[in-house]
Amino acid sequence: MKVALLTGGGDCPGLNPVIRAVVRTIHNAGGKSIGMLEGWRGAIEGNFTDLRVQDTDEIIARGGTILGSSRTNPYKDPDDPELADRLIKTFDELDVDALIAIGGDDTLGVASRLYSERKFPVVGVPKTIDNDLSCTDFTFGFDTSINIVMESVDRLRTTAESHRRVMVIETMGRHAGWIACFAGIATAADFILVPEVEVDIDEMCNILKARRAEGKSYGLIIASEGAKLPQSGMVTQDAEVDDFGHVKLGGIGDNLAEVIEERTGIETRAVTLGHLQRGGPPSAYDRVLGTRLGINAARLVLNRQYGRMVALRGMGIVDAPLSEAVGTLRTLDLEFMREAGEFFKYDADPNHTP
Amino acid sequence: MKVALLTGGGDCPGLNPVIRAVVRTIHNAGGKSIGMLEGWRGAIEGNFTDLRVQDTDEIIARGGTILGSSRTNPYKDPDDPELADRLIKTFDELDVDALIAIGGDDTLGVASRLYSERKFPVVGVPKTIDNDLSCTDFTFGFDTSINIVMESVDRLRTTAESHRRVMVIETMGRHAGWIACFAGIATAADFILVPEVEVDIDEMCNILKARRAEGKSYGLIIASEGAKLPQSGMVTQDAEVDDFGHVKLGGIGDNLAEVIEERTGIETRAVTLGHLQRGGPPSAYDRVLGTRLGINAARLVLNRQYGRMVALRGMGIVDAPLSEAVGTLRTLDLEFMREAGEFFKYDADPNHTP
Amino acid sequence: MKVALLTGGGDCPGLNPVIRAVVRTIHNAGGKSIGMLEGWRGAIEGNFTDLRVQDTDEIIARGGTILGSSRTNPYKDPDDPELADRLIKTFDELDVDALIAIGGDDTLGVASRLYSERKFPVVGVPKTIDNDLSCTDFTFGFDTSINIVMESVDRLRTTAESHRRVMVIETMGRHAGWIACFAGIATAADFILVPEVEVDIDEMCNILKARRAEGKSYGLIIASEGAKLPQSGMVTQDAEVDDFGHVKLGGIGDNLAEVIEERTGIETRAVTLGHLQRGGPPSAYDRVLGTRLGINAARLVLNRQYGRMVALRGMGIVDAPLSEAVGTLRTLDLEFMREAGEFFKYDADPNHTP
Amino acid sequence: MKVALLTGGGDCPGLNPVIRAVVRTIHNAGGKSIGMLEGWRGAIEGNFTDLRVQDTDEIIARGGTILGSSRTNPYKDPDDPELADRLIKTFDELDVDALIAIGGDDTLGVASRLYSERKFPVVGVPKTIDNDLSCTDFTFGFDTSINIVMESVDRLRTTAESHRRVMVIETMGRHAGWIACFAGIATAADFILVPEVEVDIDEMCNILKARRAEGKSYGLIIASEGAKLPQSGMVTQDAEVDDFGHVKLGGIGDNLAEVIEERTGIETRAVTLGHLQRGGPPSAYDRVLGTRLGINAARLVLNRQYGRMVALRGMGIVDAPLSEAVGTLRTLDLEFMREAGEFFKYDADPNHTP
Repeated sequence: MKVALLTGGGDCPGLNPVIRAVVRTIHNAGGKSIGMLEGWRGAIEGNFTDLRVQDTDEIIARGGTILGSSRTNPYKDPDDPELADRLIKTFDELDVDALIAIGGDDTLGVASRLYSERKFPVVGVPKTIDNDLSCTDFTFGFDTSINIVMESVDRLRTTAESHRRVMVIETMGRHAGWIACFAGIATAADFILVPEVEVDIDEMCNILKARRAEGKSYGLIIASEGAKLPQSGMVTQDAEVDDFGHVKLGGIGDNLAEVIEERTGIETRAVTLGHLQRGGPPSAYDRVLGTRLGINAARLVLNRQYGRMVALRGMGIVDAPLSEAVGTLRTLDLEFMREAGEFFKYDADPNHTP
Repeated sequence: MKVALLTGGGDCPGLNPVIRAVVRTIHNAGGKSIGMLEGWRGAIEGNFTDLRVQDTDEIIARGGTILGSSRTNPYKDPDDPELADRLIKTFDELDVDALIAIGGDDTLGVASRLYSERKFPVVGVPKTIDNDLSCTDFTFGFDTSINIVMESVDRLRTTAESHRRVMVIETMGRHAGWIACFAGIATAADFILVPEVEVDIDEMCNILKARRAEGKSYGLIIASEGAKLPQSGMVTQDAEVDDFGHVKLGGIGDNLAEVIEERTGIETRAVTLGHLQRGGPPSAYDRVLGTRLGINAARLVLNRQYGRMVALRGMGIVDAPLSEAVGTLRTLDLEFMREAGEFFKYDADPNHTP
Repeated sequence: MKVALLTGGGDCPGLNPVIRAVVRTIHNAGGKSIGMLEGWRGAIEGNFTDLRVQDTDEIIARGGTILGSSRTNPYKDPDDPELADRLIKTFDELDVDALIAIGGDDTLGVASRLYSERKFPVVGVPKTIDNDLSCTDFTFGFDTSINIVMESVDRLRTTAESHRRVMVIETMGRHAGWIACFAGIATAADFILVPEVEVDIDEMCNILKARRAEGKSYGLIIASEGAKLPQSGMVTQDAEVDDFGHVKLGGIGDNLAEVIEERTGIETRAVTLGHLQRGGPPSAYDRVLGTRLGINAARLVLNRQYGRMVALRGMGIVDAPLSEAVGTLRTLDLEFMREAGEFFKYDADPNHTP
Repeated sequence: MKVALLTGGGDCPGLNPVIRAVVRTIHNAGGKSIGMLEGWRGAIEGNFTDLRVQDTDEIIARGGTILGSSRTNPYKDPDDPELADRLIKTFDELDVDALIAIGGDDTLGVASRLYSERKFPVVGVPKTIDNDLSCTDFTFGFDTSINIVMESVDRLRTTAESHRRVMVIETMGRHAGWIACFAGIATAADFILVPEVEVDIDEMCNILKARRAEGKSYGLIIASEGAKLPQSGMVTQDAEVDDFGHVKLGGIGDNLAEVIEERTGIETRAVTLGHLQRGGPPSAYDRVLGTRLGINAARLVLNRQYGRMVALRGMGIVDAPLSEAVGTLRTLDLEFMREAGEFFKYDADPNHTP
């Protein structure tokens, strides 16, 4: 049996553990693996590399993907409707028996259509650093990411204390607040902003002022890049506003820092962690999760259970139809924000001894 | 409402996040918290410290427990049957309304008896770095621990390569192989030894020899301290053997290294990670888990739901009777070893191109 | 003997080790220490805290400064010429015998004037994360900083590889290129930009293109925030240009990324590490250096050798007059850039097999 | 020009940066490099690998040595006096113009004899993780090592606090106390034991008891593996004693822990860091130092200045005759112990308020 792999979309710690586990499991069953380079682009153009057990054994500790990635999507180029045909032709010519596609909603959406429209023998492995895919409890990359945010904030804390500042940390999370919420809990943030919850600027500033009054020498705000400030919360008159009156995505950290400094009078700085959050060696959790998903994706292929994806449910790896998994954004479970909210309260009554 | 906390047994990253979360949640409800010092010993003798929100806010990032710990157990001292009486008297005198006991099977066992025999208002929070408590999917400390093992092994790998050695890493896990199994998967180990599975020394040595023959320049064995070598696997004639013919607990790493070197002819070294595995700042996972358990334990107390413990089940925090939780060792789910086992195979047929 | 300490200017890993060492050394000699809060501001206003051995023993591992810092400078406020008088009066009232001032060119400049103009008993400890103070081989904070840059780049590398990108990392270093040069060497950068060397944009882009042609899948540029692009190197027409035709300080990373992407056609991203570079636990080097400087500054005070500062020279701690130390920026020793330059060469002749 | 490299003796972070820098510098001058495998063994047997710029560019971040190492010494095998002949014959056959030998006293001793006795064109690069080579201020690997010890102790500290223990950390340093002394300063140790200083067991125990009495909840002892206990300090009757009445090398940590527990009554544990101290990615300092030594060693070869080694002196790289560099152990400069000694004092007079 000859199995092809590809990784699509943004890179993410944990991709290499999946690749390694697939290669080993297919090898153990007597098969061989090849890797299509740079996502669907390589699959369409026939660029690939042989994947052997001894070449992939140590990649478990490496971030990113040894196969490269791209945002090429055969179904999103209106000028060339023949891309899916070429892709299938490529796999025919390469004598590939099945494909394991590792990627997010976009990549798995392609996989799902290839299976439903053309019975293409494909199995999916869910990947999103933002943890916003449905059908799986957690995605690999997420745990590494929140640890990077946490370690960065642990560093920034002493600077904030020394200069009596508020620090605003802007994290990834365009559509869902998983990273900001978990990292905010883990770093003892004074307030967390996520896309799922309307931000109360006054409440946030009141907390910062109350804690300063109680003697806390610094403040810490964790904000998803996708969190939205109400128009009334903007300080810069020229900030772009979207159709709903929200300040536009991007730059939330800098904008918030200005708002906070103006309203509280406390010196405030923003730090945008950016690409740091998706790089480097995967955490143990992500290595184990990636490995387990890879083994079980390979087993699906060996059992010819196509059109499905693997997923984490509780402590077990299960599988589900690709068609159910795609198209639905999994936003942050608000129970986590309710728990985090215990730390966003402050004593309105100054006579209450905290 | 006045709530007492205590931490019992071995220390563990994540204890301080629990304490912090309890103090904040009780404070938000208008109550106050005190911490009994050094586990049940402080509870018996009445040694405590006030726990205030501002003093505990930043302890989330610290390993160990600010309350100190001990292995004192009021039910294990045959010379002094009055200890439980003194303990209850102490709490009476301190005007404590409820106790939150954070600890392992031993600590929670005391809590369970105090509740069942004397209706003492107690709530439990499960703690074990070895992840071997029933009633909860994962315990805090475990994730930090496997990351420490993983980072240590990532360091040892380059030394092993440079000198073409086998390295044997002895991890914690006296009765259950959770740490060794997860760390072994995360570090791409060539073989994992856990207490739950009879070790096949020949198989292990064959893997090491086969991989050396294929060109892999080093080897990596992860062994639980509680893994047992069959008597036939011993190399040292004077090793102590238990009633079942197994080499005695302790020193498994050194013993294994001797066995491997003798049987494979490959230079082999053992490293025992010891206390390193339980120290230092908790990982993000353990800070979030500890925080959530603390909040929910405090909520149980606020609702006067005594005799229960909090637990992680899937993505949610649930509660269960203390009586159900104690007394049962949760050994490693062998599905994890079956998955890990994909990496312990080797090509008996040298003509199969790997 | 009663000794006051203060920390001025931007925070820096290593300040707390200095404080700890001074407190211990003064204590051993039978004296006591107090800490003026937030730099010269606290010294002027008389805000201080007692510094005792047991409170400062563990601060060696903490970033920032437990005394707080500020940019207050008694000689820089034209509205209030009496600040130095008030400062001296404050110390009189507090019965302080000597001051140890820990800070950069600005802080040490105040100390130097206080000594030369008023015979004020002061000793200086040099501090600058940028390593640009004369009279000392290395300043504490610098080593921590280059390790943080290095670890961040090690993370970014796998992302860059996966997406075949050039990454531009903007580091601290407004006036001197020490951090960029050392971090650039340590991270195997393809090119390093420092304020001391005129940037050759064409050369830089040629290197990136040549390496891409040779098969290297990504590129890495390390740029001091103070590096200057020639006007001809600018891509954005509206970039601000200073009197010398250089693109203005600040935003060099983003500007460079645009230039590179336009001229090479390679996808390029910028990351600005910002405050991350000055936070968190000091490295071993900085803890040892800070400790040694603190001990020796205290010894100067105990010997009443005022008007001097301590400094690292080779492996020893020496002292020098404050007046010689201030006012001179120590730019990067260009021998380091010559060494780094071995890695900026490329094969103009494609027939040379690299 | 064709240059051979080899790495001898124990592995050490920084070896790969040296190799990378040599390869690049020789390449820039139009030459080529090969790497002899596993130290002098490969040089004798003619086992080598080609070293090209693109294969070595990223090894800067890897611990160990890509060339492998061994303790083979052509001058230490009495049964085969012809080894040096074979070695020279091998280099002749391989058409090698010069050799760069990277290693410690043993490896450089061979290089020195090859040069002095046979005019063999060799240049040396000093390597020892213990920092005990003369002729150079610091050796690479040492800085990485003290950071690993420091980070490990930072982890152990919280465990020690939680259980009110003394922790004894045994570090590398068989003949010189550099690692223990620097790591001890960096970790705020209560006492440091090095081979160069006679240990005063009573003094050490008095410090631990005095600090416990003052309220410090734990203790921290850093001991070189080569530190020697006086016979009177031994607790175990069956400890091996050398000709001078000292407890034998090895196991100093465990022995000390027993002594301390018996004499102070404080629970004490030993941790031996072992191989962890020499593995993993080099620190920034070691990457820069290794790179600079490599560049300058290659320049010596390009200038045909044989029989010399490169060395760090202050901020510059200098060179010295191999014959001067070998044979002399550089023990710890005792000024560092005098500085560290400020922290080993305690108040004999309990009325002195600390």
